[in-house]
Amino acid sequence: MFKIAVVGASGYTGVELLRLLVGHGGIEICGVTSRQFAGQPVSEQFPSLRGCVDRCFEQLDPAEIAQRADLVFTAVPHQTAMQMVPELLDGGTRVVDLSADFRLADEATYAAWYQEHTAAHLLAEAVYGLPELYRAKIAGARLIANPGCYPTSAALAFAPLLANSQVDPATIIIDSKSGTSGAGRGAKVGSLYCEVNEGFKAYGLPKHRHTPEIEQTLSDLAGQPVTINFTPHLIPANRGILSTCYAALVGQAGQAELHGLFSSYYAAEPFVRILPEGQLPNIAQVRGSNFCDIGLVVDARTNRVIVVSAIDNLVKGAAGQAIQNMNLMLGLPETQGLRQAPVFP
Amino acid sequence: MFKIAVVGASGYTGVELLRLLVGHGGIEICGVTSRQFAGQPVSEQFPSLRGCVDRCFEQLDPAEIAQRADLVFTAVPHQTAMQMVPELLDGGTRVVDLSADFRLADEATYAAWYQEHTAAHLLAEAVYGLPELYRAKIAGARLIANPGCYPTSAALAFAPLLANSQVDPATIIIDSKSGTSGAGRGAKVGSLYCEVNEGFKAYGLPKHRHTPEIEQTLSDLAGQPVTINFTPHLIPANRGILSTCYAALVGQAGQAELHGLFSSYYAAEPFVRILPEGQLPNIAQVRGSNFCDIGLVVDARTNRVIVVSAIDNLVKGAAGQAIQNMNLMLGLPETQGLRQAPVFP
Amino acid sequence: MFKIAVVGASGYTGVELLRLLVGHGGIEICGVTSRQFAGQPVSEQFPSLRGCVDRCFEQLDPAEIAQRADLVFTAVPHQTAMQMVPELLDGGTRVVDLSADFRLADEATYAAWYQEHTAAHLLAEAVYGLPELYRAKIAGARLIANPGCYPTSAALAFAPLLANSQVDPATIIIDSKSGTSGAGRGAKVGSLYCEVNEGFKAYGLPKHRHTPEIEQTLSDLAGQPVTINFTPHLIPANRGILSTCYAALVGQAGQAELHGLFSSYYAAEPFVRILPEGQLPNIAQVRGSNFCDIGLVVDARTNRVIVVSAIDNLVKGAAGQAIQNMNLMLGLPETQGLRQAPVFP
Amino acid sequence: MFKIAVVGASGYTGVELLRLLVGHGGIEICGVTSRQFAGQPVSEQFPSLRGCVDRCFEQLDPAEIAQRADLVFTAVPHQTAMQMVPELLDGGTRVVDLSADFRLADEATYAAWYQEHTAAHLLAEAVYGLPELYRAKIAGARLIANPGCYPTSAALAFAPLLANSQVDPATIIIDSKSGTSGAGRGAKVGSLYCEVNEGFKAYGLPKHRHTPEIEQTLSDLAGQPVTINFTPHLIPANRGILSTCYAALVGQAGQAELHGLFSSYYAAEPFVRILPEGQLPNIAQVRGSNFCDIGLVVDARTNRVIVVSAIDNLVKGAAGQAIQNMNLMLGLPETQGLRQAPVFP
Repeated sequence: MFKIAVVGASGYTGVELLRLLVGHGGIEICGVTSRQFAGQPVSEQFPSLRGCVDRCFEQLDPAEIAQRADLVFTAVPHQTAMQMVPELLDGGTRVVDLSADFRLADEATYAAWYQEHTAAHLLAEAVYGLPELYRAKIAGARLIANPGCYPTSAALAFAPLLANSQVDPATIIIDSKSGTSGAGRGAKVGSLYCEVNEGFKAYGLPKHRHTPEIEQTLSDLAGQPVTINFTPHLIPANRGILSTCYAALVGQAGQAELHGLFSSYYAAEPFVRILPEGQLPNIAQVRGSNFCDIGLVVDARTNRVIVVSAIDNLVKGAAGQAIQNMNLMLGLPETQGLRQAPVFP
Repeated sequence: MFKIAVVGASGYTGVELLRLLVGHGGIEICGVTSRQFAGQPVSEQFPSLRGCVDRCFEQLDPAEIAQRADLVFTAVPHQTAMQMVPELLDGGTRVVDLSADFRLADEATYAAWYQEHTAAHLLAEAVYGLPELYRAKIAGARLIANPGCYPTSAALAFAPLLANSQVDPATIIIDSKSGTSGAGRGAKVGSLYCEVNEGFKAYGLPKHRHTPEIEQTLSDLAGQPVTINFTPHLIPANRGILSTCYAALVGQAGQAELHGLFSSYYAAEPFVRILPEGQLPNIAQVRGSNFCDIGLVVDARTNRVIVVSAIDNLVKGAAGQAIQNMNLMLGLPETQGLRQAPVFP
Repeated sequence: MFKIAVVGASGYTGVELLRLLVGHGGIEICGVTSRQFAGQPVSEQFPSLRGCVDRCFEQLDPAEIAQRADLVFTAVPHQTAMQMVPELLDGGTRVVDLSADFRLADEATYAAWYQEHTAAHLLAEAVYGLPELYRAKIAGARLIANPGCYPTSAALAFAPLLANSQVDPATIIIDSKSGTSGAGRGAKVGSLYCEVNEGFKAYGLPKHRHTPEIEQTLSDLAGQPVTINFTPHLIPANRGILSTCYAALVGQAGQAELHGLFSSYYAAEPFVRILPEGQLPNIAQVRGSNFCDIGLVVDARTNRVIVVSAIDNLVKGAAGQAIQNMNLMLGLPETQGLRQAPVFP
Repeated sequence: MFKIAVVGASGYTGVELLRLLVGHGGIEICGVTSRQFAGQPVSEQFPSLRGCVDRCFEQLDPAEIAQRADLVFTAVPHQTAMQMVPELLDGGTRVVDLSADFRLADEATYAAWYQEHTAAHLLAEAVYGLPELYRAKIAGARLIANPGCYPTSAALAFAPLLANSQVDPATIIIDSKSGTSGAGRGAKVGSLYCEVNEGFKAYGLPKHRHTPEIEQTLSDLAGQPVTINFTPHLIPANRGILSTCYAALVGQAGQAELHGLFSSYYAAEPFVRILPEGQLPNIAQVRGSNFCDIGLVVDARTNRVIVVSAIDNLVKGAAGQAIQNMNLMLGLPETQGLRQAPVFP
């Protein structure tokens, strides 16, 4: 049994990591930290975990926890992650970081969209943990930058198209919608029930911070710099991201041909489900699971393709993908602990 | 007091018409019909209206109701409307039709997207009831085609841009999201609470029937044929439409200039609210009201403008706009009965 | 036109008061205060009110605002209210206080359930503003204690029974459920969307602070001290309170007789709707309105009566009732500004 | 590997059985029937199960499926179950019936609350499948009557009190609230999203059909006939039942003593979690899991105890409990396939 620690477990990503780790079978949880709740039982903050995780939050001592754990998940805000990751790695453990701090390979881009980077020496080493695109590199990595939720949904929607030069990269528009857990567990008026419920809005326009992360992956796929429009919206639902992705086709590929392309591109992927022609994804159908559902249509009137992808932002968009990366790093079956069917309704 | 009848009042548009008419002050309800519920008290189907509308649903007799009413709202499905509207007009009343049957001026387009038209002789006479664009024609009309909910949100978002040649019409993408009341009150599995709640999906791709209606208005504004992509989605909320509208700018207009353009274009409109720069609309802020809120941003990186518009699909997207048209037709103040502040939260 | 001020208008009760006052017709808003947002446009905090309330929040100066306003609504927390109300009254204005500070006639009871009272000299003067029970006293009052939301729903459910000695007061159990706006607009983790949505819980057991307020009214109706169980729950909805009320019958009155009793007791009340036998209320059917819907059943097997009442907690449970009181105090028609039909769906 | 069939798998209970069986590990699904959808892939009706259950719905042939399966779940409406269960048993398989048809031991009671029973000869044999109370009998049973969702929540809340004569059975009131999946997947107007969302209501008063089922279990616990009031309500949420249970204490037991009683009564139960004093359950904390969470308070003012229990109606209230019964019948570990932590948020 590998020993796993979760650092910063008091948010929604943290509780989801614990939920999934509890049922994993190949690991044991050896530490759960939270600055804010250190000393409290985990089940006091998260009564759902009573009887499942019966330990207390601890204060983080990076060097000590690096000793204790074979692998550490850091589920902390950006800027906080870059402060603790170097020490964790120095302590000899491996890290899957769920923040944005190691996702952008280019230090200047990071500085432009976030702030100064204080652990930029690790950027070259960090591997972007999207297994469907970078599986080979993940296994041997010491530090995984776990992808953002929106970028995961966008990258999986565009990979077959860009890798096969089917669309004009200059025409890409990504209109994404996220459940509210993506906004975190911080006590903000904008996240109150009465502010979100029966509402729907766009936010962060036109420069949400996931934009450069999406552009980095799409550029890698296209083999050329790609600039996009990315518009996130807030859904009155707990979980789920749906991205509606638009691009102009460069050739004459029709619906059937592109559907075939997606199907073969992802044929071996355990967590990507290409829906039958005529069907489109719904976040309700992936809830609680690590699946990414994809549907697509070609509009012959405008010669555009519209790809719709759906994930659970807390699973394939965060904790599930982190565990998928962990499995690859530890030599466990990639799908271990992640085969749950979605919870519907 | 003008006498007003509501034909087909057993759906969500019907109950919303009744809600708004009850508080109007300048009219009296003289008839409420429903094939399905004829003979039942309105308050049995709609307990919200107990003490507000104390009459029964009747069977429709078009000729008789045309005698009784100065104006009739037809809140029935397309195809049903075209059967009853001619007889209502022949009976000497005026009609605001909330179906799609008289919205498309071109008979062939209607046939291509719906089915054969059996009252095509009225298409030339019918006025598209979007007061912000066609106010002058509405006053004198005998038959108003009340706009669809999505088309209203799209037309108001693009009007200042197309009327002033600011965007390339070939690049228009409209990503819309609607509350569930837009799906009607029919008992379908897909509209059940457990199917919609905690879900989000796109539907009707790539050829939702509101597409030609939107294209008709945008073409009129642009002075040239416009072909668009329109993608509707279903929000787990009762009411509201939010449309996120993309287009490539043709000139160098910046954020401030375009914001100024919208502000002056709609300066005299009582129901269009251009939000301050940096603010974006939310369907929660127009709930129950006839307002259309609009925000916009320019993305200098891609030279695209993104306009976001929000309406209540049952008010400005249906019943409220219908009453606005009624006011214009009857010579009443345009805003009478429609000045309610939105219900928040 | 009477001049009205709203003190503490930055919460959900405040915005609801403004929404209803905007459409009232017989008053004008002469001041809107908020410690936290003084200087900001009201529409920045509440975009729903853009174009409806175009003024800024002010700092409160009680003496000055008492000069300016014929009547002041104080929509502030308990303890804050008792500090400002004396000064407002001294300044010569009338006050409808929406806090709990003047609802309990007995100073010791207030101290036991809240804290020391610093304006206890006003308790004897304050009139409990439930018009259906205390209409006559309200008109002449200088200070109205606007009832709590739960107590309103409970008092209206039990009044006909207790006033007519139909039930054993020792057996009263009130199981209430409230929408989330009742928890206020404070940024607390427990009120976050993801904590409330898809959840349901009881809270405040067994001694929620509305208990003595309910007991005071029920005791007054029964003519003897009444002790109850009151259990509030949180509904994942914005608005609405539904109270399910149980009591043992003392006689042999059946369903029809008690239904008749309720119907005649409330026959003249404009805002109480007794549903037909066999129908039960739903908070969805009173949303946005000042109605209290009541249904009842007798269970012959247990000889208990079950009364179910539904109100909108922000309207009949707060702002609407406050305006009803204002109308009575100012000699306006009691229903002015409060005749809106509920917003459904 | 045991072979398991699900009969009537097209409803919410059916899809939940499949979700849980997919991850069970000790069984394989050998048949999935649905009259309505026979021939269709399961994943067409339930896209959540794509890649998890890749088979089609079949027509039911009871004799044949009895051959094929070691155990059959019948997830069909009452009255339908009594028609097929005898034939299944005759075919030599064991049955866990999720309908109400075999829950009431007394034929006359069944006839009074439902209709004539056509398989009454099996009532004596059927075992009521609430493992916490009847574990010993379940293992050897050929036919399990899987308890109703409300009755499960009520029985577990009252068992320690009645088994220990702590409350007066004549004073029991059970105020229950259920998520909407309890209403099933039938296409009814009352179950539409817009009818349920932002609503809350009581229904089925005063004689909901779960009443005699609850009374049967409580009577068994009390050793005397118990008559109760049971009031179900509809929560605008997909899943979850919360029951607020009231009874008068017969002795002087205080909070701590009763809390201790519950803790020791359920000490060995894997699926009952007694919350620490001062905490109350929330349906959000058991979502997707087989847990029943219980909290309790004593109100010294009225000498009543209030017990609050929460389950997921589709898991401990249906499919999960059915699998718990299956495990006991097949000699598998009772918790196999049921150890998932709840999904929060």
